Amino acid sequence: MSNRMWGGRFAEGPDAIMEEINASIGFDKKLYAQDIRGSKAHAKMLAEQGIIGADDAAAIDRGLDTILSEIESGAFVFKRSLEDIHMNIEARLAELIGPSAGRLHTARSRNDQVAVDIRLWVRDTLDQLDTQFEELMEALATRALDHAATVMPGFTHLQSAQPVTFGHHLLAYVEMFARDRSRFADARARLNECPLGAAALAGTSFPIARETTAALLGFDRPTANSLDSVADRDFALEALAAASIAAVHLSRFAEEIVIWTSAQFGFVKLSDKFTTGSSIMPQKRNPDAAELVRAKTGRISGSFNALLMVMKGLPLTYQKDMQEDKEQIFDALESLSLSLAAMTGMVRDLTPNEARMKKAAGSGFATATDLADWCVRTLGIPFREAHHVTGRIVAIAAERDITLDKVPLADLQAVHAGITEDVYSVLSVAKSVASRTSYGGTAPKNVRAQAKRWIARLAKERAKKA
Amino acid sequence: MSNRMWGGRFAEGPDAIMEEINASIGFDKKLYAQDIRGSKAHAKMLAEQGIIGADDAAAIDRGLDTILSEIESGAFVFKRSLEDIHMNIEARLAELIGPSAGRLHTARSRNDQVAVDIRLWVRDTLDQLDTQFEELMEALATRALDHAATVMPGFTHLQSAQPVTFGHHLLAYVEMFARDRSRFADARARLNECPLGAAALAGTSFPIARETTAALLGFDRPTANSLDSVADRDFALEALAAASIAAVHLSRFAEEIVIWTSAQFGFVKLSDKFTTGSSIMPQKRNPDAAELVRAKTGRISGSFNALLMVMKGLPLTYQKDMQEDKEQIFDALESLSLSLAAMTGMVRDLTPNEARMKKAAGSGFATATDLADWCVRTLGIPFREAHHVTGRIVAIAAERDITLDKVPLADLQAVHAGITEDVYSVLSVAKSVASRTSYGGTAPKNVRAQAKRWIARLAKERAKKA
Amino acid sequence: MSNRMWGGRFAEGPDAIMEEINASIGFDKKLYAQDIRGSKAHAKMLAEQGIIGADDAAAIDRGLDTILSEIESGAFVFKRSLEDIHMNIEARLAELIGPSAGRLHTARSRNDQVAVDIRLWVRDTLDQLDTQFEELMEALATRALDHAATVMPGFTHLQSAQPVTFGHHLLAYVEMFARDRSRFADARARLNECPLGAAALAGTSFPIARETTAALLGFDRPTANSLDSVADRDFALEALAAASIAAVHLSRFAEEIVIWTSAQFGFVKLSDKFTTGSSIMPQKRNPDAAELVRAKTGRISGSFNALLMVMKGLPLTYQKDMQEDKEQIFDALESLSLSLAAMTGMVRDLTPNEARMKKAAGSGFATATDLADWCVRTLGIPFREAHHVTGRIVAIAAERDITLDKVPLADLQAVHAGITEDVYSVLSVAKSVASRTSYGGTAPKNVRAQAKRWIARLAKERAKKA
Amino acid sequence: MSNRMWGGRFAEGPDAIMEEINASIGFDKKLYAQDIRGSKAHAKMLAEQGIIGADDAAAIDRGLDTILSEIESGAFVFKRSLEDIHMNIEARLAELIGPSAGRLHTARSRNDQVAVDIRLWVRDTLDQLDTQFEELMEALATRALDHAATVMPGFTHLQSAQPVTFGHHLLAYVEMFARDRSRFADARARLNECPLGAAALAGTSFPIARETTAALLGFDRPTANSLDSVADRDFALEALAAASIAAVHLSRFAEEIVIWTSAQFGFVKLSDKFTTGSSIMPQKRNPDAAELVRAKTGRISGSFNALLMVMKGLPLTYQKDMQEDKEQIFDALESLSLSLAAMTGMVRDLTPNEARMKKAAGSGFATATDLADWCVRTLGIPFREAHHVTGRIVAIAAERDITLDKVPLADLQAVHAGITEDVYSVLSVAKSVASRTSYGGTAPKNVRAQAKRWIARLAKERAKKA
Repeated sequence: MSNRMWGGRFAEGPDAIMEEINASIGFDKKLYAQDIRGSKAHAKMLAEQGIIGADDAAAIDRGLDTILSEIESGAFVFKRSLEDIHMNIEARLAELIGPSAGRLHTARSRNDQVAVDIRLWVRDTLDQLDTQFEELMEALATRALDHAATVMPGFTHLQSAQPVTFGHHLLAYVEMFARDRSRFADARARLNECPLGAAALAGTSFPIARETTAALLGFDRPTANSLDSVADRDFALEALAAASIAAVHLSRFAEEIVIWTSAQFGFVKLSDKFTTGSSIMPQKRNPDAAELVRAKTGRISGSFNALLMVMKGLPLTYQKDMQEDKEQIFDALESLSLSLAAMTGMVRDLTPNEARMKKAAGSGFATATDLADWCVRTLGIPFREAHHVTGRIVAIAAERDITLDKVPLADLQAVHAGITEDVYSVLSVAKSVASRTSYGGTAPKNVRAQAKRWIARLAKERAKKA
Repeated sequence: MSNRMWGGRFAEGPDAIMEEINASIGFDKKLYAQDIRGSKAHAKMLAEQGIIGADDAAAIDRGLDTILSEIESGAFVFKRSLEDIHMNIEARLAELIGPSAGRLHTARSRNDQVAVDIRLWVRDTLDQLDTQFEELMEALATRALDHAATVMPGFTHLQSAQPVTFGHHLLAYVEMFARDRSRFADARARLNECPLGAAALAGTSFPIARETTAALLGFDRPTANSLDSVADRDFALEALAAASIAAVHLSRFAEEIVIWTSAQFGFVKLSDKFTTGSSIMPQKRNPDAAELVRAKTGRISGSFNALLMVMKGLPLTYQKDMQEDKEQIFDALESLSLSLAAMTGMVRDLTPNEARMKKAAGSGFATATDLADWCVRTLGIPFREAHHVTGRIVAIAAERDITLDKVPLADLQAVHAGITEDVYSVLSVAKSVASRTSYGGTAPKNVRAQAKRWIARLAKERAKKA
Repeated sequence: MSNRMWGGRFAEGPDAIMEEINASIGFDKKLYAQDIRGSKAHAKMLAEQGIIGADDAAAIDRGLDTILSEIESGAFVFKRSLEDIHMNIEARLAELIGPSAGRLHTARSRNDQVAVDIRLWVRDTLDQLDTQFEELMEALATRALDHAATVMPGFTHLQSAQPVTFGHHLLAYVEMFARDRSRFADARARLNECPLGAAALAGTSFPIARETTAALLGFDRPTANSLDSVADRDFALEALAAASIAAVHLSRFAEEIVIWTSAQFGFVKLSDKFTTGSSIMPQKRNPDAAELVRAKTGRISGSFNALLMVMKGLPLTYQKDMQEDKEQIFDALESLSLSLAAMTGMVRDLTPNEARMKKAAGSGFATATDLADWCVRTLGIPFREAHHVTGRIVAIAAERDITLDKVPLADLQAVHAGITEDVYSVLSVAKSVASRTSYGGTAPKNVRAQAKRWIARLAKERAKKA
Repeated sequence: MSNRMWGGRFAEGPDAIMEEINASIGFDKKLYAQDIRGSKAHAKMLAEQGIIGADDAAAIDRGLDTILSEIESGAFVFKRSLEDIHMNIEARLAELIGPSAGRLHTARSRNDQVAVDIRLWVRDTLDQLDTQFEELMEALATRALDHAATVMPGFTHLQSAQPVTFGHHLLAYVEMFARDRSRFADARARLNECPLGAAALAGTSFPIARETTAALLGFDRPTANSLDSVADRDFALEALAAASIAAVHLSRFAEEIVIWTSAQFGFVKLSDKFTTGSSIMPQKRNPDAAELVRAKTGRISGSFNALLMVMKGLPLTYQKDMQEDKEQIFDALESLSLSLAAMTGMVRDLTPNEARMKKAAGSGFATATDLADWCVRTLGIPFREAHHVTGRIVAIAAERDITLDKVPLADLQAVHAGITEDVYSVLSVAKSVASRTSYGGTAPKNVRAQAKRWIARLAKERAKKA
């Protein structure tokens, strides 16, 4: 709530301005655990390589553990005058263990230190997001199995086009989130190289073992070029791009929830847990959570956009501009995490109104395509001609205000003599849906099989993680 | 530093998720002063109109004053369970004054309340930014007056093209910031309509006087359509668009400072106040503040972009998505404020290296255009032919590695017989610069006049404000 | 359809690549009329100032007229080897009038030439857009007058909140588009300064009269700083920002049309003119035009974003990067023009289904607020207490599945003894709407007055233009 | 050049507007080859499954071949009244082969047809881009091998920090582009599923074999959910995100070229092939190609942004909004292709000025870190103390205006008694560079090894492709 405006003639002087624009401790303290983890690995390696003594290394290790406890217990005092998380921790280490602390920064620089911190943070976060995607997909697949045969209108242009099943619709999102998850997995694999040892920018003359720190920190290998290591943030851009795309997927389902919970659609209902109401209008269930998930798309992609613009046209290597990466990364990935949690909650919470969905699926001659396909298949006429026949039959139905399965056979035969009783087998909504048995189609048996396949696959993956 | 990730299988339940995604008190408490101001005006109007009693109004007014003091002294306890700033204040008011508090919300809704709060915040902020622009322009114009005749290379494509003066260069930014300021002034004028009285969305049946609240809050008039009043945020988008454009201007000057302070250019020097150094590399003056100003462009335009995407495709009227407006507005405008403060500081701080700039201005046959123009003017030949003549003379100079003013007259005449001694009057850098007397041109006398015009105009505007 | 990929090992050489990336004639030929207009004004001024002869000026003028005719008739052959529109025209002028053509470029450079061309194009386009906004607003206001009393649900969160009128809803958009229009008007005023005479970047030593060219080209004045004149494109950014905001407004109405034309809402119908159908599903009226208007928001704001990123961090003055401005400007403003035309067409075309809207407005206890307000007003109880009373009454109605105006007085009095027969006067939808007479409220008489005010104002403005 | 503004009162009517906004043939004709390929595969499968006759399939196949020839020869007449590429081809097929043409669309819809077309186009394009990345990386690695020992300043904040080699710098970009390439490879793998057979949205009742068409078109498998198949465009978003990140990498190198070719830096020179000059200023070599590559970042990321905003919040399945995907995809990926071609050309073309780079590398006590590291290593003092010692020595050198390797031993020993003759072994630029032998460090032998590794790897990959 502090006033962050630098108001006019009475503004503070250069020192205050410089501290305000330059200090990062306000946000980079979020990296404390990663910073300590990186330093512990570095110290261990330095000792193993004989660059620092074993006693120094042990003191450093103990000191860092103490600091970790202090931070997690809230006892640590962050000082803005020390600018960033690295200097805050290093200064405290010196207080705790004395001159040995001065040996930790051997063969290291803040440039490779922050690079490894932020990579570790992103990697940790991607791992958490992975589990969240898993849960959302599992929630969707479970509901899809229950509703493999629950009929609803399939929409194009928000106009009912052909009947589909609610389970099929939910599984469409499972496919999308599976791709999102796989995008994050690729991003994780690509970022999993350790920049530690790049030092300021040129590498170092100390006999460090970069494979050791890489392995200690769970990286697949050290990075291959020191300039690149301290200069690039493409791993962050890639994570934010994947987050933006995932947010678009979430926004689409969120939009559907908003539309479906309107009185006019009434396809699904959310409980009080995910809606807000009005003390005097009990029917009003504002789908706040869905609206906010939809809105987060702007926020997340705004962060991607911001970081792209920050990085555009920066000469190598480290530029102070890059300090602006952290808040965007933190905010975007945390927003995605919250959106996933909210969406998973809504998927579990929502109750479909099967009667309304079924009724809507049956209106508007939604089985006209089935009729046309029957003509092609049974009468052997070309697709385009079958469309013509169907159009005439639909016109009859429309004129009498009846559904297609209520048009008498004689009238059908008046349009095309070859039409037989068998045609009625495709004109009901349930039969239409059941007939779409092509791979990926909406037939309940397909949907059931796909839902089971996903549930089994997700369970297996979870077991592997555990 | 709190963990904002919603991690996996052990995540908290729906209530925690909903509170996290829904509550806005974490950021909208920044609106406390505006919220109280709005409520005081509303209560006063209600009493004037006889809608609430004078006693109630007086109690409300006193209560709100108390709350304002409590918040500003830090004594106020914000409660997340009360969700937002409006409910936090209203609940405290009820504690302080009892049932009268329940009359404040008559003929009002949170929808018009938040709309007025955020407009007031933006307006207050635009007023502060206006003063900051004024100061930056004044700093630039003052330095420009000092350096009206300080010669430097004028660049296109980062290649020296024609000599200009440093003062002229600084005044180019005065023009840009003047347009930025005028953009914000237009935005302010457009937003200065009061939405209070739109109530939930349809207006109200109470005999309210919207002109009264509008006037009390310094608005030019009440808004004309209640649905529009609670549904739109275009005033925020406009402010963020103007901020994005201003940030681009700032980024250009920031980039120049970064380039100019490089060892290779060495055109200007920043003091320690706006640079960071290295304990062992004293020559290294990292222009951190300039780099960060450059980077803020991404952040600010990222916010504009985020809010555009939030608002895209929202049906009328209020949608919860719009709660996402505040953090973007706060962050973008505060970032701009900080950038302006830092840039003003740097403008005042920087020392040009006149010798290096002058030397650079004279290299590369930078007065070739002057030669060509002299030929057109004096020899009466077409521009395109004059270019041909000049090209041949430059080739001679280049071959001998001398500047144009050192090429002997005989050699000039060998290229074109009409050339006379007079030509040397345009071939030096100082004369080139002095000759560009067309309106807006770089001639020192022009620059001096423009700098004085700006200084006077800014002083006058400041006097008017005071 | 040409393959624009630079495929691999067999790609063309440097010359082809450079021509492809560098030549702008493919898109900047769109500026031909502005380029010729600018050159004619420049030549006239040069002659008036005695810088070129009257004969030369006359030849140039005639030559340029010929070229204009050639281009407009399609006879002109654009040559890619001449790179851009300026050189294409200048080369043709030389063919047509010989050496006099070489005098046109006196005291001018491509840098100020392209700056004036693009400003003129943007200005011309803003003028056209202004008329389009006018027409859209007129269409909306006219329909609003017809439907000043047509009741529909007023939505928040896509949940019915309070009844409003369709006319009131349409007027909300009139207010938005009026602000858009005023934003463009401000942008036009700000850009209306003439950069011609800035020459390459430093001004010129020729005795030009910049006021003359400014006046001839309809500019308010010449620009005040030559570096700024050739280096900035903020006028384009501002126009694209205004276009982005207007596109968001359009997208909101477009979204409403998509939702309202769904079978479930059925609030409005679009004719075949603005929908596409299916040969076999006659009820399917895909609101393609509305969907495309909604989508253009992405395109338009993408262009703003692109140009912001192009300009970010460019040192002064002209950089080749700025050549990328044109396609973004052209595409964004033309897309907005098309969107406005399509939206105006849809506004005129759409037919509201008054019965469905009215029915929807009456469902869900939408007059509960009216009941609460009646209690406050008549019983003198605080707002918060009135809410409590109303909540209990709504619960009774909900339990019996009746609307509020059907709850017997005795039952009302059982909740609060003070309730009288008069309460029914506020419980019907029509009465609710009629009671919202506060300024800007939805009462039909208000809506009628506002619609008339707008129609009159727009007619007056149109008359002034004609 | 056609006027695309929809100007005012005299604008064309609804039909013209609808055609303008709706027709896509103007841009989707670029998909002709993919559309034909998809149709051929579909027809073959239909015949194999017995859904259409072999004669029909053969006629369709021949007809499509004819159309392909017609389009490629320029003989095909595209008709706007037929709206899109699909209908243009289908209509021509009917002309060529009669009623058999009407059977092609069996078990297919425009929804899955366009989905497969655009996927094929993106995939084809990614394959071309892959080869282009390969060439760029090869060009960089080859130059890096030549310049493995060419010393230049390593910059942070555009301030010289430590000496590095030019080869090392070039290899930093090889790493970046390798990641870009791998991002595109991941995107390609993820998109390589065939949507054909999803039909309108629900799948089909015809006994189609989706594995067959998938295999015929080179897809790894059919997509698993029909709704997802026609509703999502995340593969395009992912390709555009990868393009945006790659463009940022290109922009960084482009910026360096612009800075390095300035007179003040003079690190590299580009030939006339990639610069433009001035007829009268021969020293002016405007690095137009580099500037344009830098600017394309805006354009490419603008397209990503546009498509994100288009897709945000769209309910399933196909919405007309999605028609806006194509122009963004085409423009962004073609712009990237051109940028890669231009950058590859510049990498091959540029000539480093080794003398200037070396001199710059040696200025500014750039080996101070080497001195500090020597102290740590040899004197066994902590890093922070070594910094203190170094600072004092640098101060001596600065005061006398000499480089570090010229400070007499006695003076060094006066600062710290333990310093020996050996210290000079690290104080020259060449020795500094040679000492950075840590993995990924800038030592020439490292750089040589990395360059060779890349050259060999790229050659192997190329061999595999051939």
